[in-house]
Formats: sequence, C-alpha cells, structure tokens
Amino acid sequence: MKTAELAELGQQLRVDSVRAAAAAGSGHPTSSMSAADLVAVLLAHHLRYDFERPENPANDRFVLSKGHASPLLYAAYKAAGAIEDGELVTFRKLGSRLEGHPTPRRLPWVETATGSLGQGLPVGVGIALAGKRLDRTGYRVWVLCGDSELAEGSVWEAAEHAGYEELDNLKVIVDVNRLGQRGPTRHGHDLDAYARRFQAFGWHTIEIDGHDPDAVDRAYGEALSTDGQPTVILARTLKGKGVAAVEDREGQHGKPLPDADEAITELGGRRELHIRVNEPPAAAVLRDRTTEAIRLPRYDEGDEVATRDAFGAALAALGTARGDIVALDGEVGDSTRTEQFAKEHPERFFECYIAEQQLVATAVGMAARGWVPYAATFAAFLTRAHDFVRMASISGSGINLVGSHAGVAIGQDGPSQMGLEDLAMFRSVYGSTVLYPCDANQTARLVAAMAGLDGIRYLRTSRGKTPVLYGPDEEFRVGGSKTLRSSEEDRLTIVAAGVTVPEALAAADRLAESGIAVRVIDLYSVKPVDGETLRRAAEDTGCLLTVEDHHPEGGLGDAVAEAFGDGRPVPRLVRLGVRTMPGSAAPDEQLHAAGIDALGIAAAAKLLVEEAVVQ
Amino acid sequence: MKTAELAELGQQLRVDSVRAAAAAGSGHPTSSMSAADLVAVLLAHHLRYDFERPENPANDRFVLSKGHASPLLYAAYKAAGAIEDGELVTFRKLGSRLEGHPTPRRLPWVETATGSLGQGLPVGVGIALAGKRLDRTGYRVWVLCGDSELAEGSVWEAAEHAGYEELDNLKVIVDVNRLGQRGPTRHGHDLDAYARRFQAFGWHTIEIDGHDPDAVDRAYGEALSTDGQPTVILARTLKGKGVAAVEDREGQHGKPLPDADEAITELGGRRELHIRVNEPPAAAVLRDRTTEAIRLPRYDEGDEVATRDAFGAALAALGTARGDIVALDGEVGDSTRTEQFAKEHPERFFECYIAEQQLVATAVGMAARGWVPYAATFAAFLTRAHDFVRMASISGSGINLVGSHAGVAIGQDGPSQMGLEDLAMFRSVYGSTVLYPCDANQTARLVAAMAGLDGIRYLRTSRGKTPVLYGPDEEFRVGGSKTLRSSEEDRLTIVAAGVTVPEALAAADRLAESGIAVRVIDLYSVKPVDGETLRRAAEDTGCLLTVEDHHPEGGLGDAVAEAFGDGRPVPRLVRLGVRTMPGSAAPDEQLHAAGIDALGIAAAAKLLVEEAVVQ
Repeated sequence: MKTAELAELGQQLRVDSVRAAAAAGSGHPTSSMSAADLVAVLLAHHLRYDFERPENPANDRFVLSKGHASPLLYAAYKAAGAIEDGELVTFRKLGSRLEGHPTPRRLPWVETATGSLGQGLPVGVGIALAGKRLDRTGYRVWVLCGDSELAEGSVWEAAEHAGYEELDNLKVIVDVNRLGQRGPTRHGHDLDAYARRFQAFGWHTIEIDGHDPDAVDRAYGEALSTDGQPTVILARTLKGKGVAAVEDREGQHGKPLPDADEAITELGGRRELHIRVNEPPAAAVLRDRTTEAIRLPRYDEGDEVATRDAFGAALAALGTARGDIVALDGEVGDSTRTEQFAKEHPERFFECYIAEQQLVATAVGMAARGWVPYAATFAAFLTRAHDFVRMASISGSGINLVGSHAGVAIGQDGPSQMGLEDLAMFRSVYGSTVLYPCDANQTARLVAAMAGLDGIRYLRTSRGKTPVLYGPDEEFRVGGSKTLRSSEEDRLTIVAAGVTVPEALAAADRLAESGIAVRVIDLYSVKPVDGETLRRAAEDTGCLLTVEDHHPEGGLGDAVAEAFGDGRPVPRLVRLGVRTMPGSAAPDEQLHAAGIDALGIAAAAKLLVEEAVVQ
Repeated sequence: MKTAELAELGQQLRVDSVRAAAAAGSGHPTSSMSAADLVAVLLAHHLRYDFERPENPANDRFVLSKGHASPLLYAAYKAAGAIEDGELVTFRKLGSRLEGHPTPRRLPWVETATGSLGQGLPVGVGIALAGKRLDRTGYRVWVLCGDSELAEGSVWEAAEHAGYEELDNLKVIVDVNRLGQRGPTRHGHDLDAYARRFQAFGWHTIEIDGHDPDAVDRAYGEALSTDGQPTVILARTLKGKGVAAVEDREGQHGKPLPDADEAITELGGRRELHIRVNEPPAAAVLRDRTTEAIRLPRYDEGDEVATRDAFGAALAALGTARGDIVALDGEVGDSTRTEQFAKEHPERFFECYIAEQQLVATAVGMAARGWVPYAATFAAFLTRAHDFVRMASISGSGINLVGSHAGVAIGQDGPSQMGLEDLAMFRSVYGSTVLYPCDANQTARLVAAMAGLDGIRYLRTSRGKTPVLYGPDEEFRVGGSKTLRSSEEDRLTIVAAGVTVPEALAAADRLAESGIAVRVIDLYSVKPVDGETLRRAAEDTGCLLTVEDHHPEGGLGDAVAEAFGDGRPVPRLVRLGVRTMPGSAAPDEQLHAAGIDALGIAAAAKLLVEEAVVQ
C-alpha cells in the first residue's frame, strides 16, 4: 500500500475505535487513536498471519500489551476480515467476544490476556524464546506497549531477559503518547530517555514519528533486518490523534469521545477498507511429540526423601517421556531441584534468574505456543508473580508452578524464605488446582498428573526429608485424599497435608496410647478438595482438626470449611496453623513453636475430645 | 583509619561472619565475605549513626538489601559495639535476635526486613524520599545490594523512581561478586554492563575494586559529594574472599565454610577491633505534629455515593487533621480518588506511577521513618506487590493500602481490572486488618480508624455508587459488624460486605414479601471478624449465607467459616461468590451473572429455608 492508503487505513482504525467505544459507552478510544498508524502499517505490510488458522505454527504473534487499546485491536481484526462490523459494536457488552481488555478465552487470535500493564512484553519474551529455541518456525513476535507501562519493573525484567537471550525475533513498538491515565508520564515525548534505557539492556532502538506511515514502514523494515538483538521502535504519537477535542489533551483517558459523530466526520468519515494480511511461509514445528510411557522415580516405604527431590526426579522423568515439557528456573534450581531436568534436558531448560514475574510470564508465553511448562522457585517468592498468575488464569493458560521451601518447616532461614501465604494465593485463583504432597511417591505421581490438567496448577514442596508413606504404585486422584488411619472408634479426624501428615500420624499414635482413636486424612489435594471423604469423616467422628504449615487464613483450614459450604450440617471444625511470626530456629523447633508438631496436634485433639465428653 | 587498619577490620568482619555461620551450622558466610571491605570502610569512615539512639532523626539509614549476608551485618554491629561477641554466635538459633535474615521486629538498627531479593533498594528509595522531601534532617540512605538481585524488576522501578526524583541522598553499593545461588550471574564481573543500566536511569555510577579499601573510601567520598542524582558504586568483589577453599568458587552459596577453624587461621585469626562510628549532626525533624480534630466528610442517608469518593474525601480530611499522613498513588489517583489529597496536601502526596512494587515499598520506607502512608491503586493491581506486602508484615510495618475497583461490580472493563483475589491475599498476611465498607460514612470512619492500627491495613473500595445506609455519626469498630435486619422470626442470616450489602437488603425485602424473615449482617471488618455476632446469628437462625464480590476462596465466606473454628458447634454455612470467569458487561449484569445480586441471594436463601423445612 502507498503512503496515502496506509494513512487512510489508520483513519479507519481510529474511526472504528471511536465507534466501538461510543456504542459501548466506555472504553479507551484515545489510547487506540495514538497507535492507529503503527497498527495500520504493521497489518498491511509486515505482519504474517493466517486469521483463518490462528494455530498455524508459522504465524507471527501479536501481543497488545496496552490491552486497554482493545478498540484498535478489534478494528484491526475487522480490517483484516476476521470479524464483521456488526460484531465491532458489541464491544464491552454482555456476552460479546470483544471484551474491555482482550482475552484468548474468547478470541482465537489473542495470545495472552492483557489489561494489567507491563505483562504483554514479558509474555511476548516467553513466546519469542519459544520461537527461537523450541519452535523454530521463523515467526516474529510483535508487542505493542504503552509508554506509561514502562514504569513497571516487569518490563525491565523482560528487557534484560530478551537482551541477554538475543531475541532478534522480538519486535517491540512503544506508543509514546506522553499521557498516562492521570496525567503526563515521567518522560513525556523524550524518546531518547527510553532509547537509553533499552540500549543499556542490549536492545536495538529506533526512534520515529508514529504518525508518519513511511517512517513507521521503514522502522519495521529495519527491525526485521536486525540480527542478534531485540528491537524496540519508540514512536512519538499523540493520544487522541486526529480529533482536536481530545488530541494530546489531559483528562481524556478511558472514556468515549465527547461527540463521536463529530469526531468521525473530523476523521474523514467511515471507511470499509479490507486488508489481505500476508500469509506466513509454510512451516512445521519440529517439536518432538514422542510420548513414551513415563518412568517415574520409585521410593521405598520408610525411606526419608524430601518432596522437592522427588519433584526434581519426576520432572526429569516426565521430560524424558514427553518432548513438550519445559522447565523454568528462578535461579534456585539447586534448591527446587529443577537442576536434574537441566542436566538431562538442557535444550528445554530455561534459566530466568531472580525475576519471578518473568519466570511466570515465560511459562505463560510458552504455554501459549503449546509447550507444557513447569516453573519453580521458593513458594514465598511466587507471591512476587501473583498478578501474573491472576492474569494467566484470565488467559486460561495451562501452566505448572512449583513452590519449594514451604512453611516454617524450612527452619533457620526465617520468615522471609517461608511460604506461608502460597496456599491462600493459589486457592483464590480462578480454576486453579492446588496440590501439597507429603511423600516422595505421592509427589512423583502428582507431578505427572499436573501436566494433564487445565488452568493454573500449583504444587507445594518441602525442603526437609519426610518419610515415604506410600508405595510407588499407589495412585492419587486430583480432588482425592488418603485416609491413613481409620476405625469405628474414631472420635476425631485430623486433616493434614505435606509436612503435617507425619506429625498427624505421630499424634495419632500418642493419642492411641491414651486410648483415643482418631482418623487421619492426608488432604494432598487442597483444591479441588475431597468433600465426600471429609463429610464422611465428619459424620463418623463429629469433629475435624485441620493442621497446616501455613497462616490460618486461606489454606487447608479454609479449604476444609469450604467443603461444608453446601448447606448441609457442619461438624465441629478446629484449625491449627502458624499464628505467630516465626524467627530463626531448627525445623522441629519451628513446628513445635507453631503448635503443629505431633505434640501440639495431640494436645489439641485431646482437648477437643474431652470437651466433647463434657458436652 | 589507615588502609591497613581498614583491611584488618574487613578481615575481622569476615572472621566473625565465618564464626557466626559455623556456630549456626547454616547461613551465608561467602556472600558476607565479598562485601566485608565495603562495609568496613563505610562503618569506619562514612556512616553517621548513633547506635544507642537508633531513633535519632539525623542518623544515616543502612539497608542490607542482600539480607542473606546477615552475618556481615551482625559482625558490623559487633565491631560498632552494638552487640556482644556472645550474641554473635547465637545466630539463627531459637529466640536469637540475630535471624537468618535481619528484621526490625527484633533489631532496632534494621530499617526493613530483607531476604526476598530486590526489596531493599525500593524501600531505601522510600526512605530517601522521606529524607529529602519530608524529614530534611540531612541523613543519607545507604543500601547494600547483591548483583544477582539486579535481575528483579523491582530494582529498576526503584532506579527509575530515584533517578527521576533526583535522590542524591541515596548511595547504593552493589557487591558484584559474580556468583548467584545456582551459578554465575548474567553479567559476571562486567561492571560496565551494570553502569550502563544505572546511567540510563539517571544515576551517577562509580566502578571500583571492592577489596581495595582506599578505592572504596574514595568512592564513598565521591558519592557523598554527588548532587542532583543518586549514586551507585559498582564494586568488583570475590565471593568467599580471603579463603582459598571457597573464594570465587561455585557451589559455595548459603552454607558454612567447609573448615571454619582453618578459614579463620587463613584470614589471620580472630580480632577484637572496635569502631567508634561517627555520630550524626544534631537535627530535629521539622514534621508538623499538629493533630487537629478530624473533620470527616458527612453524607446524608439515602444519597448515592461511591466508597472510593468517600475514601478520597476522608483521606484529605485526615491529612488536614494530621501532619504525618502521606498519600501515595500508582498513577490512578483520579480513579482511587487520592487526587483530592494531592490537591489539598501536595507536599505530602507522592506519585509512584505504574509501579505497584515501588508504591508499596515507598509506603514501607516512609512508615520506617514514622510517617503514616496511605497507598492506593486498583485492588487487582495490589497483587503485583504481594511479596512486598508479605515482607512488610515481617518488618512489622504499619502501612495503609487501599484497593479500589473491587469485584465484578466494576462492570465493562472486564476481569483484568477486577479485584477478585484481594481479600484472600490480605487475609493471609500475618497481623493484617481487612476492611470492606459498603457506604460513604462507614468508609470515612474506617479510613480514619486505620491510621491507628498496627500492621498491614487494607481497605477495599468500590467504583460505583452505593446508597448511604448509615448516619455520619455512626461508629464502626474494627472487628465489629452491623446487623441491619433482625427479628425473632429470622430463619437465615445473610452476611454481606461492600457492594453486596445493598443487594442483601433488597433480597431481604423480597424474602419478607414471601413471608420469610432473614437477618442481614454487614461484615465490614473481614479481619478481624466479629465472631460473637456471627455465632449469635447462627444460634438464632441456624444458617448463614455469605455473599461476596470475590472468588469463593479466601474471602468473606472463609472469614465467616473461620469464626466457627474454635470447636463449638457450627451452623449451616453456604457461600455465594464469583465462581465463573467474568467478561465485559454492565455492573448490574455482572452481579446478576455471578448470582450475587438481590435476585440471586433471595433465590439461594429461599432454597435454604425450604430445605431446612424439609429436613
């Protein structure tokens, strides 16, 4: 297309953005208008994408990091013939695929949900890494960022990662319209300020007028011919470009234009240009799709093995059986034990260094390309990526996250290293699975089972050794539990998971010595929870005592309570958990101080049973 | 001190680090040894600190961002005479003040808890900002970082913030020992790589040999004479410096030296040098300590007011009454309504841009200096700062966090903007308070009450207008609730908070029309929860129905269940919450789709009451 045609296409995208927001009565037309020329030239000349086959492995990938500019994205889909004009004006309405911020749950051309700023680029880095080191079909990853979101640290984690990995298939466009939501950004139209930052992280930078189609066209060409480093195009633009009432003005963020009809006239009226987007070259993914029978590690009952060790061994075994498994490390692979996978499958191991947001974003990006990622760090440090996990669930992303060093049981390192909120965090994520194994064979089985689940799957592992309680052929259903002690005389049920399971068993032994029979349930599946078994235990024993190495809120205790949230009668529920701020101490001292060791459990159980007698 | 003496002091710090870790049987001596000379010179020549009066407002502030190097910090305290040698060897033991990672809960000279990497610098930026714009007593803020942690995005949020704010009272030292936990860092000993990055963000940089006391001394002098920009000293060091068995070797992270006695001999044996640390100049804080009676905004019953508006007005009023209140914004002050505070108290308003980790870190830094911060952004985006909130609770920091735009009730923007996990996140934080008001007068009262609480306090506000239910003189106890409907005939209790309160009242009206009397409780204090009122309601009505604009896990439903976790009989508990992934739709459509509007509540209540009849 010639310059004038590109400019026309840009105006069409503006007009359609204005129309969509006007029809919705909300939305971000001004943030769409600033980037319209950037998207027009990309769509018309450089993007290689088969809209009829979004799964085509050679398709370029486009991520709208500034997700609030969704009207622009949808206007581009319309110009490309992917959606009809009639759908465009369903924007933000109940049941529409065209949400306020785009999500892949609803639209097949969206790579990842955006709308929380500073996430599109990190996920784009994950996709680009998959493209360069795994898929190798030659696709390019285009990411359109806003300037405001460059204040997010996650952007610089991503910039560092991409620069270091020399991701020359990554082409980032920054729509520098100088205005954030509340007012001007820190750097306004100072493109050099951004260029210096990206250059320092090893990027090729190009500065242009984002409203000059020829300049934009040349910049894309230069980006495509840049080898050995990622490219960022810093485009000077005006928010609300083309409509005097809003152009470059403050106070016009996130609202429809004051007079849409007038604005459309000012923009030259409606157009119905259709673009034939370039098709990608024919290519096939070289992915090794071999699936052998998995040979999980096997542990002997009675041995002492840390669940993190079992995780590391099982993950490596899973990687041998399946060519689509990848492992990601937050520079603690020697602690989480992803190191074993790194040794056996170095080509599918990715070191993300101490950057947990990028760790999770890399997983999301790789999952978007069909890989099955396991990302691991300390449970405590996964809180760093909470917003990324939340957004991944909105994407419907299928990722495996593994948090080691959970709870006070880690001992001397103290509270900064103790995951004591992780169960609460992952339980609250939509559609998540939360697993907390207590022994090595159980861990190995669950590591393999996770791979086949939908949504966010979390596995919590422990630092110290725990006894192997189950045989290597025992099966563990996600959503199930194991009843480890049971008799007709049970007067109480102890519900434990992970490190508190052996403590619960020891407590049961102590109680048996006092003539008190108790049931013990290993609730390794914290979400979904085995309501049936819990309800039966409640009917049989009348009282459930939950014991968890976690703060009392949001974890095992709440999960058990939730199982009785259906309106049926509820038993007596008592919860033990970490109620004080721990310091440094040996693991056994920590469990004792928190009252979740065998002694504490037995004392609480005894009190409850005796109370029941009094009543 | 002369060069040789400084070197001797460095060796003493190494020896004492080795000794502390050896006594503990764990810890990070090698990470301490690399930075020993850096700390020795700082302590002997440049730090101005009165260890007997840590509260002295003119004291310099020192933050050990690489918190795992705690043996070095404690060795320095010993050299400064702040602790005895006998205490040094209690390191990491039960009850010791000398934890694996330092916390201000236990030690008066520690500014903030560290141990989750990449947090010390952001908090240091908050302290430096307080020093420059609020306290103005001339103190300098020294932050010792590791090189591994520079991969964290939060470090670059902080670098951007400090550069932009020209924090020339901030002096950062990076101990570039080239080795992370698992292996080499990305940039090894390439000091220039780090210098380019910091320079790009507007910093003055100095590159030195970190084991040359004179070079270190000169660098500190240069840092102190640098005006108008923050300084970073990039020091080339060797991990485990001084002991051949570990020096610059991989696999030596986070463990005691293989042979401590031999190492101490190699380091020249024990020394007992004592340093007289320079005292700070006399200075007083100019803080306006005036406390007037607060004139909260007053709203008329029956009016419709968004709780975010009431928050904005109340915060501004609080700022007028108290000179120690500061407000922090994540570039959404027009949405959260901190804008009103910004207009009335611009000198105590801090724009943190779209960088939620730095937003919370700034709050922590300012709280460490005695200010009372309120930091606000969308509830959803506070998940970005989860790890900072977690660490703030370990610090015992007293900060107020306000999350607006909670729940599906925001409407069209869709799930990326909806806080649906925030209650779970904040409930699980140790010692936190979680408040969720439903009307404007309640909001105003709670905003004022928050300031006087300990620990992390969270207030959840709503985007849309809700009816004013309470008079302006009504009082709201933290840990309390309000029973809005009650009769002797109540057959069920609806427990609601925030936007679901008016829905619950409307449901009660509908049910009354069908002859079903129900109790309605406004559970504005989600943590601590009003167990007494809930238990009474349970006894009176037999069944509690919780209704929340939040995922069903970790929020109101779990909080109510927790109130029955003391072993006493539990009523029937049923919870309504957001169980599907919302898209875009109008607020009322969203509440309806989630089944938490009046219609959904009434239907659920009716079913429960009828079930009870059947039973």
